[in-house]
Parts: sequence; structure tokens; C-alpha cells
Amino acid sequence: MNLLHPKKDKLVEAEEKRRDLGFGTQINDPDTRLLNRDGSFNVKREGGGFWSELNIFNRLVVCSWGRFFELIASFYLVLNLIFAGIYEIVGIENLQGADMTSVRSRLMDAFFFSSQTLTTVGYGRIAPIGFWASTVAAVESLLGLLIFALATSLLYGRFSRPVAHILYSDKAIISPYLDVTGFMFRIVNERANQLIDLQVEVAMSILEKQPNGKLLRRYYGLDLERSKVNFFPTNWTIVHPITQTSPMFGLGKEDLVKLDAEFLILIKATEDTFNQTVHSRTSYHSREIVAGAKFSPMFSDKEGAGVVTLDLTKISDIQEVSLSSEYVPTVKEVEIGKQSDFFIG
Amino acid sequence: MNLLHPKKDKLVEAEEKRRDLGFGTQINDPDTRLLNRDGSFNVKREGGGFWSELNIFNRLVVCSWGRFFELIASFYLVLNLIFAGIYEIVGIENLQGADMTSVRSRLMDAFFFSSQTLTTVGYGRIAPIGFWASTVAAVESLLGLLIFALATSLLYGRFSRPVAHILYSDKAIISPYLDVTGFMFRIVNERANQLIDLQVEVAMSILEKQPNGKLLRRYYGLDLERSKVNFFPTNWTIVHPITQTSPMFGLGKEDLVKLDAEFLILIKATEDTFNQTVHSRTSYHSREIVAGAKFSPMFSDKEGAGVVTLDLTKISDIQEVSLSSEYVPTVKEVEIGKQSDFFIG
Amino acid sequence: MNLLHPKKDKLVEAEEKRRDLGFGTQINDPDTRLLNRDGSFNVKREGGGFWSELNIFNRLVVCSWGRFFELIASFYLVLNLIFAGIYEIVGIENLQGADMTSVRSRLMDAFFFSSQTLTTVGYGRIAPIGFWASTVAAVESLLGLLIFALATSLLYGRFSRPVAHILYSDKAIISPYLDVTGFMFRIVNERANQLIDLQVEVAMSILEKQPNGKLLRRYYGLDLERSKVNFFPTNWTIVHPITQTSPMFGLGKEDLVKLDAEFLILIKATEDTFNQTVHSRTSYHSREIVAGAKFSPMFSDKEGAGVVTLDLTKISDIQEVSLSSEYVPTVKEVEIGKQSDFFIG
Amino acid sequence: MNLLHPKKDKLVEAEEKRRDLGFGTQINDPDTRLLNRDGSFNVKREGGGFWSELNIFNRLVVCSWGRFFELIASFYLVLNLIFAGIYEIVGIENLQGADMTSVRSRLMDAFFFSSQTLTTVGYGRIAPIGFWASTVAAVESLLGLLIFALATSLLYGRFSRPVAHILYSDKAIISPYLDVTGFMFRIVNERANQLIDLQVEVAMSILEKQPNGKLLRRYYGLDLERSKVNFFPTNWTIVHPITQTSPMFGLGKEDLVKLDAEFLILIKATEDTFNQTVHSRTSYHSREIVAGAKFSPMFSDKEGAGVVTLDLTKISDIQEVSLSSEYVPTVKEVEIGKQSDFFIG
Repeated sequence: MNLLHPKKDKLVEAEEKRRDLGFGTQINDPDTRLLNRDGSFNVKREGGGFWSELNIFNRLVVCSWGRFFELIASFYLVLNLIFAGIYEIVGIENLQGADMTSVRSRLMDAFFFSSQTLTTVGYGRIAPIGFWASTVAAVESLLGLLIFALATSLLYGRFSRPVAHILYSDKAIISPYLDVTGFMFRIVNERANQLIDLQVEVAMSILEKQPNGKLLRRYYGLDLERSKVNFFPTNWTIVHPITQTSPMFGLGKEDLVKLDAEFLILIKATEDTFNQTVHSRTSYHSREIVAGAKFSPMFSDKEGAGVVTLDLTKISDIQEVSLSSEYVPTVKEVEIGKQSDFFIG
Repeated sequence: MNLLHPKKDKLVEAEEKRRDLGFGTQINDPDTRLLNRDGSFNVKREGGGFWSELNIFNRLVVCSWGRFFELIASFYLVLNLIFAGIYEIVGIENLQGADMTSVRSRLMDAFFFSSQTLTTVGYGRIAPIGFWASTVAAVESLLGLLIFALATSLLYGRFSRPVAHILYSDKAIISPYLDVTGFMFRIVNERANQLIDLQVEVAMSILEKQPNGKLLRRYYGLDLERSKVNFFPTNWTIVHPITQTSPMFGLGKEDLVKLDAEFLILIKATEDTFNQTVHSRTSYHSREIVAGAKFSPMFSDKEGAGVVTLDLTKISDIQEVSLSSEYVPTVKEVEIGKQSDFFIG
Repeated sequence: MNLLHPKKDKLVEAEEKRRDLGFGTQINDPDTRLLNRDGSFNVKREGGGFWSELNIFNRLVVCSWGRFFELIASFYLVLNLIFAGIYEIVGIENLQGADMTSVRSRLMDAFFFSSQTLTTVGYGRIAPIGFWASTVAAVESLLGLLIFALATSLLYGRFSRPVAHILYSDKAIISPYLDVTGFMFRIVNERANQLIDLQVEVAMSILEKQPNGKLLRRYYGLDLERSKVNFFPTNWTIVHPITQTSPMFGLGKEDLVKLDAEFLILIKATEDTFNQTVHSRTSYHSREIVAGAKFSPMFSDKEGAGVVTLDLTKISDIQEVSLSSEYVPTVKEVEIGKQSDFFIG
Repeated sequence: MNLLHPKKDKLVEAEEKRRDLGFGTQINDPDTRLLNRDGSFNVKREGGGFWSELNIFNRLVVCSWGRFFELIASFYLVLNLIFAGIYEIVGIENLQGADMTSVRSRLMDAFFFSSQTLTTVGYGRIAPIGFWASTVAAVESLLGLLIFALATSLLYGRFSRPVAHILYSDKAIISPYLDVTGFMFRIVNERANQLIDLQVEVAMSILEKQPNGKLLRRYYGLDLERSKVNFFPTNWTIVHPITQTSPMFGLGKEDLVKLDAEFLILIKATEDTFNQTVHSRTSYHSREIVAGAKFSPMFSDKEGAGVVTLDLTKISDIQEVSLSSEYVPTVKEVEIGKQSDFFIG
């Protein structure tokens, strides 16, 4: 796609600065979080078509392994029960070798014949004779093959799906940084596989009082000390230095809470095993910020022997630290004009 | 690919401005739509090789689920009939256990033996003996495995195929926008999965009368208020502000119809579950424009509880609105020189 | 990867201009084509490891369908023969139900038992008893499953492999273009699926006589009238205008043949069904150029009804045309200094 | 992701220059290699969740073929032993056809029945009767199908995983280059498939003594004669010219060893069969540099017949060569200010 538009109208330009990352400016309920900690959105949908909303494949690819196996087992059970019922209707006497001595034994053999057909194991102790039983079995074995093809697809989808398992520190901190202070959080790769070419973007969203007294949600990009690394073998503390040009300058934790500030984190990387692009999102609400703290090192004491050892359980470990006297948070109204147009493509 | 060409000849530059998005300038039948509403093209092909045009895999991946299962069922039926015929030729007496009492029962058992071989269920009530029957069965079971491998491929292809299910409003509208008017349409994600990093491009195609009286199709890129969002959890109204620099400036709906105007929409996004790039295309013909309307909100009344609720059925809901007196559409000849060179890569 | 190197040494810059697309400057045998018509390279390799060179998966994914099924059938046959041999060694009397009346019938039943095990159809007319026969059968059925998993992988790989089926005109032509002449060739999508966002790059490679009399292969990028289109529903004639800045300026067909000119074509596009990037390469040797010709239209006569019809068989149809008197080819030595540095990334 | 940050604070800029590729500046043990020859990192992890660290799929995709088949065979054996035990508990007399004459024969038949169920071959010589044996068999056959689906996923994952098999010369060399010297190493594609659009980046990491006497790891990007090629059919010698602007200028091999210099190599390319992006990493430690050598040609003597022949075994072949007298290595302190900010994205 390369339809470039060389000259923008001023009016268009002005509006473009009022960007909203796609959330819109109307979400101004102070209790509404834009982005949940797990990266999902706070929007409910209705009126979509049944099949669109069902979206079985995506759900089965995304759900937990426990739920996945539970669903497969239930499905296997229910399908065999249904087919046992169908064989009963057709007449189980058409299943050669089935034990017809009692209703219970008859239905049991129909059920197990169904399972042997569905999985295509087909021992043959019980085998269909006659048109109808044979037809049902022929349909069931085809269904079994298709279901199995689906299971293979699902398993491959689950395994090969590009996911960034990034651990975020529980809290973001405000900490001394060089001769100023910095807004920081820490990340580490939860998995043993490698992520390369990581890019991080941080945006601050606050509720601003308009001249007409209305609340409007605004978005500010935060400059980072480093927004990109080539490799990510250890932990990485992402730092936004709170200099005079920062939209956070002069704001203390209480001010941020008052402004309903939420810090949106977007990470993009390349997963090294399958060379796929992966994304990770999270947000820190102003209530999840600790002012006056620093992160403890994550390296294990037993380094040496030429190998650096990283302890993942220390990701959220912080120590108290006093902020320099220079950092005097005062409530101030963030001016609309200062909003940086931070995400022109 | 990085063969850059630093200095372009003026002649080449001039020709480059006469870009056509790949449709060519000769499609000037006013009744011919360039792009259908579903994003497909209006071009028929002939003379391609049989296999090239057949393209079974792509068709089976793209077709509807109903058609897919219909084709699989027919294929299964036909293949079993063919093999039943082959076993009849070889001699069904070589199928141990087959019911030879009548032609009908014999052929039936051959048919079901075939299905039991193809699905590899192989109960064994009927089993091949002798060279020819065994050989046919050996070939059929291999074929069964390959067909099943194909089915697995097809199912995975169908499920993992990157598709953007974007709902477009039925009509595009011309609506008041800031202190001018705007050309607008609305989109929403039909599926519950997330699309991120959406980019939208809009081009207007019109039939221009050349100095020599010939009609020539021309293409103009339209500047958008916003052409990119990071997230797409709710609906998005795409706006082209009709300012003085707009190629639509001063054109009313009747003028657009007269010029056979067609608005081509191109959307590119990243699907979040599998992190794949997805495309969506559509077009609005000038006949599908409503001048003097605005979109009704899509949010449900039962918001609250910290969750925004979106009603997908409202995507095309519009309300009448009067356009400002400033917007006085007058027929004017669009000058060729004003055509913006909007899609240099 | 983002290790940028801001300031380049002059020496480095000078050497960079002597780029060679990766072929090197030593390939100066006039009979050696750099790129074959099908896009493959003219380089033989030896000394690679056996497995590296074997590369079974890639070969089976790339080979023709005929060869693919031939290989699968042979493999199935050979594997069953081998296992029949193993069962003979273990003792076919351990295969319950096998016909032991003659050596021939015994080996036949071992062979078919093997095929029934490998495909996991397992009728059970013949079934293993005792430790050794059962063990061999257990190993064979596992092997069968793995081979079948491999076949599924191969089929999916074959089908989902991103390939651009682009038809190139047999000849490149030199044709009148605006007020000069142009080097042209024509392409069309062989398949019914869509290619979007096509990018084309053309480079000319010639053998230049150095001041010391040595022949050196040089590469020049050719500016195109249009190097990119958004859509590709019909045919596309790619044009390099031979203006005064063109490295082809003043060279006739005989001069190009004398200079052993070869035109390397690189195409990059996005396949619309699976949204994959696809590449296509070819080359036109100077012997495959027709000077004084133009391409005949590819549109079918039976257009109308609002649908454009494209006849793929006309891709190479050309008509004779006289070149303007202005185009007077004269042999000239191409100066080294004029070489454009056309492919800095 | 396109949150751009237009104006950077000077403080942020200064810190950005102190980039570390993601390794951090604290890894200053002279015996610790940053990157191993095979491209892996020297960081150990602990405290990760059991399942995160287990990461079975990734391991099975990445491990060698020998190990892969070993694991599959062991898993098959162990699973059948477990199920044989379960059938013994349930009572092997419920397996119709099992040889109950001795404990050994009974367990053997349970084991082989299990293998026939797991692979779904199901001959039926042994078949379950009664509720419990049938239930266990039904579960086992479902398990078999899922395991087989997993195996298919694994095989496809192993085969389709984008890997660049790039052979690096054993040693990097310092060799005469134009009128100066150059740091060089040589690469060739180990596989017969094509790599296109190769990009190479080289960074030098050294331990610098800070004014306070502390050692700090620093990173310098090295300008290359050519950092990109379109095609890679033959070998490619990557050259960093050691001009006055090079951070290597004036440093001999002993100086590099003293500074614990390590040269990090990053390669990015597109694999042509599946059009996937592939990465390759390696590093040369200063101890792996040969000063005063040049690479021998890799072309085979039996060229001719229009085909260039490449001998892969010659990749590391070097010949001694004397460096120009101009190249007088002297120990010098590398100044911190000269560090080039080489990897701004």
C-alpha cells in the first residue's frame, strides 16, 4: 500500500495531532481502564453474527491447555454417545459381535464401536453389517478423519502461534535517573527461546479538563532512554527520563492518579525460533506506580564460571530510594497545545 | 529488493504522475465498476492453462464451509463408488467375508469395504485375499492417507488464512466536518479477535474528458483526517475533509455520479492472534453516497460498569443533517494538472 | 537489525558503487548466463555435507506433482518389500492367517500385511503373534504414522508455499515510447488469485573492457516508467524509457549482444489469499530482444457486459513497428564513471 | 507500531549513544564470550515457571534429528509399557484373543495390543471386551490420535522453520584491502536453496578502562565495504576497511586481545523457497583473528562449460600475506567520545 499524500491541509494536520491510538476521546469514565494488564481491551461487543462471534478455531487456539483437553475429551464423549444412539435406532443387531444380552451391554458395545470407528482403530471384534449400520459407520469414520485433521490444525496453530511471553514488573516506578528522575518498568523474556530486535513504545493517557469544563481523554508519547535493542538475553529496564520536555514533568503520583493517568506499553519483537513478529501489550495505571523506588538486580549471586545467571522471580523486586529534592511534584494543568504529535506513521 | 534509482528523468516523472493503481486508463465504460463491494476485481481471464485456472487448493481454501463439506462428501461417495466398481472387476469373491448372496449385497459390501479402507478404519469383517484385491486395497489405503493429509492441509489453510473481517457502512456520506464538509464512511471489526496497526488509504477514480473529447480514467488520492490507528477495539469513522485542496472540492453528489466517481478503499492491518498482515478492499460508487447525513453512535445504551459496549448492527445507521450553506456543489471540470501524484512508493 | 552506520568513508563509498548484486565481477565468460529464464542461478556446488545437499524436504516441496507422486509410490513399494523381507526372516508363520501354502503366497501375504500395517488400516485377517513379529509390526506402524505425518507436512508445504506464477513475454522489445524509445517487456498473473503491491526492478549487466584490456562485469539499474502498482488484475507492460540518462542510450541490439548484455528482472509482490510476500525472477539476454516491435493488446474482443476479458495466450504477441529516426544505435564504450550506484539499501 | 517521538532530549540522546545491543555494560569478565560461535547467548536462567522452561514444542523443533527420533521411540516404548500395566490392572482376560498361558505372554500381548491401539492399526486379533478394557482402549486411541497430531505439527515445524544455514570461515582475517587493510571474514550458503536480499551488520565489543579505572563494555558498529547483496549464489567476503575513521584503526591483534575484543556478526536474509526472513548470528573473538592472511578462491578448477563451480570445503582456506608497512599496530586507549552511535533504528 503506497498511496502517499504529499501535502496535508492545515486543518487536517491540526486534527491529526489530536490522535487517540484508536480508543477515541469519549472514553472518559475515570474507572474505565483502556488496556488490561494482560493486554486485552475493555470493549464489549454485541450484534455480531453468531458464527463471527463463535470463532471456534481462534478460541481453541487461544484458550489454556487445560480447557483445550477438557473440550476435546467432552467432544469425544458426546460424539460417541450420539453415535451410540444412532446405532441403537438403526438396530445394534447390525453390529456383528456386539453383546446383545442386555440393554446395557448392547449400548456399551455401540458406544465402544463408535469410539473405535471415530479413531479409525477398527479392531473388528464389532463390525457393521447391512446397509444402514455400514452407512453410519462410513460417515462416522470420515467424520473421525476430519475431526482429527482439525485437531492437527489446532495443535499446530497452538504451538506455532507467535506469542511474546514477556514478564512485566508488577509496578512501574519513579526513580532517580542521571541528574533527573525517570519513569521506569522492567521486562524479561519468560521463555528460554530468544527474542530479537525489540522495540518498545510508551504512551501516557490522561483525562484533561477542556476550557468548557468537559473531560477529554488525551494521549502523549513518552521519549525513552532506549526504545530498541538488538538482543534480549537478560532483563531490560525501560526508562522515560522526566526532563522538562516530558509531559510527566512536575507531576507527582497523586497528580497522576487525579488525572486518571494510564501508561500504555506496546512491545514488538521477532521470535527467533520461527522468525515471527510478536507483539505484547500491557498498561500501568497511575495506582500501580511506586514513587521513590529502584529495581534490585536480577542477576543471581552464583555468577562466575563465565556464565551470567538471571533469576526470573526477582522481576518485581524493588528497593526504596529517596527522590532528589529537585523533584517537587506540583499539580499543574497540562496544556493542550503541548501535546506532542507522537505517532505519525 | 533494493535497487534504488536515485535520479529520475523528467519524462519518467511526468508519466509516473499518470498512475493508475494497476487498473489502466482504458477502463472507461461508465457502467464498469473497478472494484466490487466485496473487494474482487471486474476482470475475466481466458487462455490460462487448465491446472493454473483449476487451482484446487486455493479454491477449497477460499470457498464457504457449506461448499467445502459438500465437496468432501461428494468426493468420498464418488471415490467409494469407483473402488467398489474396481473390486467388482477384480472379483468380490476375493473380499473375504463379503456377502455374495446377491448382486446388491455384493456391491454394497464392496462399497463399504472401500470406505473402511479409505479411512483406514479396517474392521476386518471384510478383508482382501489374493494378489489383485490386496493390491487394490493397498493402493486405496495409501490414497486414503494422502487424501487425509490433503484434508488436514486444507483445514489448516482455511483456519490459519489471514483474513480481515471488516464491516463497512453500506453508504459513504458527505457530512459537516469542523468548519467544512467531509467524505466519510465507517468501519468496525466483525470478529472478536483484535486488529492492530490499521492503515487506510482512499483513492477517487473519475472519468475525465480529455481536450480531444476522449474519456480517460484518472485516480486521485484523498487525504484523511487520520490514516492510521494503533488499536481498533471500537468503530472508526474515516474522514476525508473536503477542503480547497481536495479533488472533491465543489463537487456535489450529482457531479460525482456524472463523473462516474468511484471511491476505492484499501485497508491494511495486523491480525493479533497469529500476527499476520491482512488486507481488506472495497469501493463506494458515487451512487452509494448520501449527501447530508451523519453516522449515529454505535455504542449501546447499557454502557456503564466500566465497559464500553459496541452494537455491530448499527454500523450503517445514519441520520439526516443539513450541510452548511458554504457547501455549494457546482459542476466543474477537474483539471488534469491538479492531479496529485499520490502513490509514489 | 538496526545497526546503522551514519558516516561512510569515501573509500568505502567508492567501492560500494562497484556493486555486483551478489554475482561478483569475475563471471565474465560471454556464454555464461547469470540468471536462467526460470529464475535459477548458474552456479554448481560441491563439497557440501551429504545431508545439506540432500535437503529432502525442500526438494519434495519444490519438485513437480508427477515426480512427487512417483516418489511416494516408489517409497511405499520399496518399504513394503523391505518389511516383507523382515517378516520372512522373523518367520511368516508368526503372521496369523497368512497363506503358507507356497513361498509366493507367503511372501505376498507378508507384503500385504506390511502395507496394512504401514497405512494403519490393519484389517486383522493377517495379524502378528509372538514377540518378534509383533515388535516388527509395532515399529512399522509407528514408522507409518511418522511417514504419514511427513506426507501431511509435505502436502501443506507444497500447497502453502508462496509462489508468484508470473508469465513473462518471450521477448523484451525496444519500442517507441512518448518522444523517445523504451525497453519493454510484459507480465501477467498466470493464476486466478490476486497479486497486490507489485514492485519491479530491472538491472542491466554488461561486460566492460577495462583500461587494462580485461573484461569486467558491470551492473546498471534501469529507471522504470512505473516500478510499482497497487493491483495487478490485468497485464502490465514494464517500460524503461531510453532517455539520455539511460545506460542503454545509443546502444542498438547488436551493441547489446556485443557487450553480452543481460537484463535481470526482479519482482516482489504480495499474494492475496495467504498474504505472503512472493518473489519472481527472470532475465532477458540481449539475444532475446526484438528492436522495433510493440505488444498487441491482450484484451479479448468479447469485452462488454461490464467485464474486461484478458486472453493470457496473447502475452508474447508483438507487431512490427518502425523506430523513430532519432534512435540511431552506435557502438560506444560505456564509461565506468557513469555507472549509477543503484542499489544502496 | 508507529508512536514516533520527534524531539529527543539531549540527556536522552547522550544516553542513547551508550547503546549496548541489549547485553548491558556490566558483562566485563574477560573470559565471558557474549555470543557463542553457533549464535547462542551466554546467559543462564532460573526461577522461570516449570512449563515456561520446559517449552517442549520449541525444544523438539530445535533439537537434532537423532535426538528427535530417540525421544519419539522412547516415548512410544514408555507409553506402551504404561498402558500394558493399566490393562494388567484392569485384567488382561478382558482383552479377547490375548495369550493367557503365562504372565510373560499375557503382558506381551497387552503391550502389543497397546501399540496397535495407539497407532490405530487395530488388527483385532486382540480386542477389548467389557467396560473397563474398552474404556482404556478408547482413551488410548484418542491419545494416539492427539500424539500423532502433535508429531505432524512437530515435523512440519521442524521442516518449515526458517533457518539460514550459513557457513562462516573459521577465522576472521586482517588483510590488505585497496590502499589500507581490512577486517574480513567469509560466508557461503551451506544449503542448495537460495538466500536473497542478504544484509550483514558487524559490531565490535571491547572492554574499556573508564577514567575511574573501572572496566566497561563498549560497542562499536563497523562500516562495511558492502552490507547488502541481492543474490547469494556464491561465496561472499565481508570487508570492514580499517580506515582512519574505523574504531579498529591502529590496533593490532595483540591490542584487540588485550581489549577483549569480540566481533558480533548479524545476518538477515530471505529464504527463497518459503519466502521467510531468516537470521544468522556468530561472533569472532580477537583470539580467532589471523593478521596477515588472505582467503583462497573457493571456485573449483573444473569451471568451464558455462557453469561456475563452488567448493564449500574451501570456506576457511587462507594464505599468508604481508601487511603493508603502513599498518603499524600500537596500543592506544580508545576514547569514549569517538564511539559511533551506530544503531539508532
